[in-house]
Amino acid sequence: MEQVTTDTICAISTPPGRGGIAVARVSGPAAIAIANAVWKGASLADAKSHTVHLGTITRPDGTALDQAVATVFRNPRSFTGEDVVEISVHGSTFIQQELLHLLVASGARMAEPGEFTRRAFVNGRLDLAEAEAVADLIASSSRAAHRLAISQLQGRFSANIDSLRQQLLDLAVLLELELDFSEEDVTFADRAKLRELASDIQNMVTRMASTFSSGQALRDGIPVAIIGRPNVGKSRLLNTLLDTDRAIVSDIPGTTRDTIEDTIDIDGHTFRFIDTAGIRTTDDPIESLGIERALRSVAKASVVIWLLSPDDLQSPETSANKALIDGSIRPDATLIPVLNKIDTIPDSVTQATESLSAMAPGTAPLAISALTGTGISDLRNAILAAATAGLPDDESIIVTNARHHAALTEAADALTQLIDGIDLGLTPDLLAQHLRQAIHSLATITGSITSTQILQTIFHRFCIGK
Amino acid sequence: MEQVTTDTICAISTPPGRGGIAVARVSGPAAIAIANAVWKGASLADAKSHTVHLGTITRPDGTALDQAVATVFRNPRSFTGEDVVEISVHGSTFIQQELLHLLVASGARMAEPGEFTRRAFVNGRLDLAEAEAVADLIASSSRAAHRLAISQLQGRFSANIDSLRQQLLDLAVLLELELDFSEEDVTFADRAKLRELASDIQNMVTRMASTFSSGQALRDGIPVAIIGRPNVGKSRLLNTLLDTDRAIVSDIPGTTRDTIEDTIDIDGHTFRFIDTAGIRTTDDPIESLGIERALRSVAKASVVIWLLSPDDLQSPETSANKALIDGSIRPDATLIPVLNKIDTIPDSVTQATESLSAMAPGTAPLAISALTGTGISDLRNAILAAATAGLPDDESIIVTNARHHAALTEAADALTQLIDGIDLGLTPDLLAQHLRQAIHSLATITGSITSTQILQTIFHRFCIGK
Repeated sequence: MEQVTTDTICAISTPPGRGGIAVARVSGPAAIAIANAVWKGASLADAKSHTVHLGTITRPDGTALDQAVATVFRNPRSFTGEDVVEISVHGSTFIQQELLHLLVASGARMAEPGEFTRRAFVNGRLDLAEAEAVADLIASSSRAAHRLAISQLQGRFSANIDSLRQQLLDLAVLLELELDFSEEDVTFADRAKLRELASDIQNMVTRMASTFSSGQALRDGIPVAIIGRPNVGKSRLLNTLLDTDRAIVSDIPGTTRDTIEDTIDIDGHTFRFIDTAGIRTTDDPIESLGIERALRSVAKASVVIWLLSPDDLQSPETSANKALIDGSIRPDATLIPVLNKIDTIPDSVTQATESLSAMAPGTAPLAISALTGTGISDLRNAILAAATAGLPDDESIIVTNARHHAALTEAADALTQLIDGIDLGLTPDLLAQHLRQAIHSLATITGSITSTQILQTIFHRFCIGK
Repeated sequence: MEQVTTDTICAISTPPGRGGIAVARVSGPAAIAIANAVWKGASLADAKSHTVHLGTITRPDGTALDQAVATVFRNPRSFTGEDVVEISVHGSTFIQQELLHLLVASGARMAEPGEFTRRAFVNGRLDLAEAEAVADLIASSSRAAHRLAISQLQGRFSANIDSLRQQLLDLAVLLELELDFSEEDVTFADRAKLRELASDIQNMVTRMASTFSSGQALRDGIPVAIIGRPNVGKSRLLNTLLDTDRAIVSDIPGTTRDTIEDTIDIDGHTFRFIDTAGIRTTDDPIESLGIERALRSVAKASVVIWLLSPDDLQSPETSANKALIDGSIRPDATLIPVLNKIDTIPDSVTQATESLSAMAPGTAPLAISALTGTGISDLRNAILAAATAGLPDDESIIVTNARHHAALTEAADALTQLIDGIDLGLTPDLLAQHLRQAIHSLATITGSITSTQILQTIFHRFCIGK
């Protein structure tokens, strides 16, 4: 654990840019004195915790920067566990800059990214997994990503990890007893029982680690590929899907989403469209490169939309393309064959869909017109159903963090070695070594065991001011 | 004055986008009840004014949206004068949207732009000029613009207007007395005295109105034109000036400026580069159009940079160009002749500058190289000195608002008519009519007299959430 910090940090904690109000946060032993130095109004030095004060931010020359509201939080009753003052000013870019200048001139230091949350961790206000959830929570832009982050922040994930670690510690106690009495050749731990417990925990750890790819998809967006022959309307379909989405999200003024380029939100899930490329069988080496790229995007996708036009149904190339897709698609992904341009064949849509069904057995083909919008809503529902079918349910613990995934994988490996060791009849001291490794790996997740370097890496992906 | 509102409004008051924290503001009679409906934690219903509470924003189905801090302000001790709750949450775009949804579902209405400030005005917490200053303050991105806005928000401008209006009211009392006793043909108001007082006030109002163009320049940026023959390096000079500035402003992390395209900040003043166009004497009608455009930008500028290359000093065209500039430049503007590309004539810079001096008597020519950066810092200082020489000093009242300028001009006109009326020996009732018009015009500035339509116009230029 690192040393408790002694300096005082400051930053603007609200989003960058201009707004009605902006909030600067000051945290550390001198927070109240530093805020008081730029403050004209009733002294903050005497303010009780959790009280709010009206005053004027004032420069050393006595000129006013802004009318402001200051909120005082006294340690340990604050986010960081230190003395904290939050200063709310008018959200002009000039005022925000100048306020930081004044605070720094009065003895504060500009905070590094994530430094407030890091202090909350160092002061025991959050464990490490909870602290990491703060960054995920701030980054969340869909309901699904938000649910994962808030659940992790509320400690459900940490509680599960701690419970697994406790079970391993119980095993360790048994083994250590054996070690203490080893000269007497006593076997306290029933090996069959030990193996069964280790195997149960190994299964739980492995299952948790296996949620990582779904977890990543939920957090960062579920990858979708649109593939098809040139000119079947891939770009128009993408635009139609994006436009519908834009119209839906833009009805709440006062909030902006992050870039929604090629990302859509369906029923709280984010879908990320990867490389939408043309595919056709060819001998031309340059075109082959394009096809390779298309098939790579198929291999990355959880949902593959295979887009066809009515012409394709008669073309011999089509089954060759189907074979290419079948060869690249992930076993856990869903293929949705979609017949586009049905506005051009109004009288034979049913027949065409049936022939597509025969061509791609085991799938549920859809008929749409990206031009007129027919069938687009069905397609959105099909994408959502395909993507969420494979996801763990709401109550499952889902791993979204690469660091946690690595630690869980390490723990699972150590447990496998423990089980192998039992099977090979290894001595208790060798078995205990694997067990200790597994316990250590789990402990790094919640930060019971940690290093300054790991903390540096974790908190630098935060935004400034949090 | 409009009716006091009875509904409760909400909005995100912090800048749009993602940040460490975001703040939603709820104002109106039901503010505390509505915030309480989405709140899990100690009830806000019993909270005293200016207190801060930790809790969880919770959906109707019991799921948690976020851990939050709520600050309660009870009427009239709030920005709007109504009950206000400020809810601080993690600054995810999803959380911000969802929190607004929950507040609206609990009975709040999305605030219109400027609606919180409008309520502050309606409830007598700010006069109209002060309320308008809030928008200017939020928009301020330079020291100079900020100083004007904060001074207006602190009521200095309003106090001056009120004092002028009071003096006019004193005159009016004298005239009204005459009207009451008119049948007795008594003249209470000494006409010479009346004329002198009216003339003094007319001068003050006119002087105040005349600061408007400087005020606009301070608020929106001081207009600068760079003019010169094609290929003397105008674009490179502009880029060099902009780059220096970008490097200077980017050293404060966590804040962003508004678009700085063609705008630079020198010592707290914003300079706005208008149309940087080529000029040359020509008979070609198409080229003539370009020259007209260049001369129009000269006519708009407070500072005109006339850029020349060493070749120009020998060209007969140069004095013709000088004559064109002289014909267009504003009398209050400053011309700075600047010799560029001095890196190409290292041995004869002094001589060249002297010859330029002779060509533009009364100016202080500079020698620079936009390529190497030589002289750029002197040029920045010269632009600053030229622009600020003509500005009213720090303590003057400066008009920055077109609505105020129009009202002051109206008042000045009415006072001119009053003075003319006195000179023509008009009856007191006719004189009183002009006086009432002048008083009315001044009253609209601070909002003692106003209409719903004017309020609509004023507050709609605000951002949402303020």
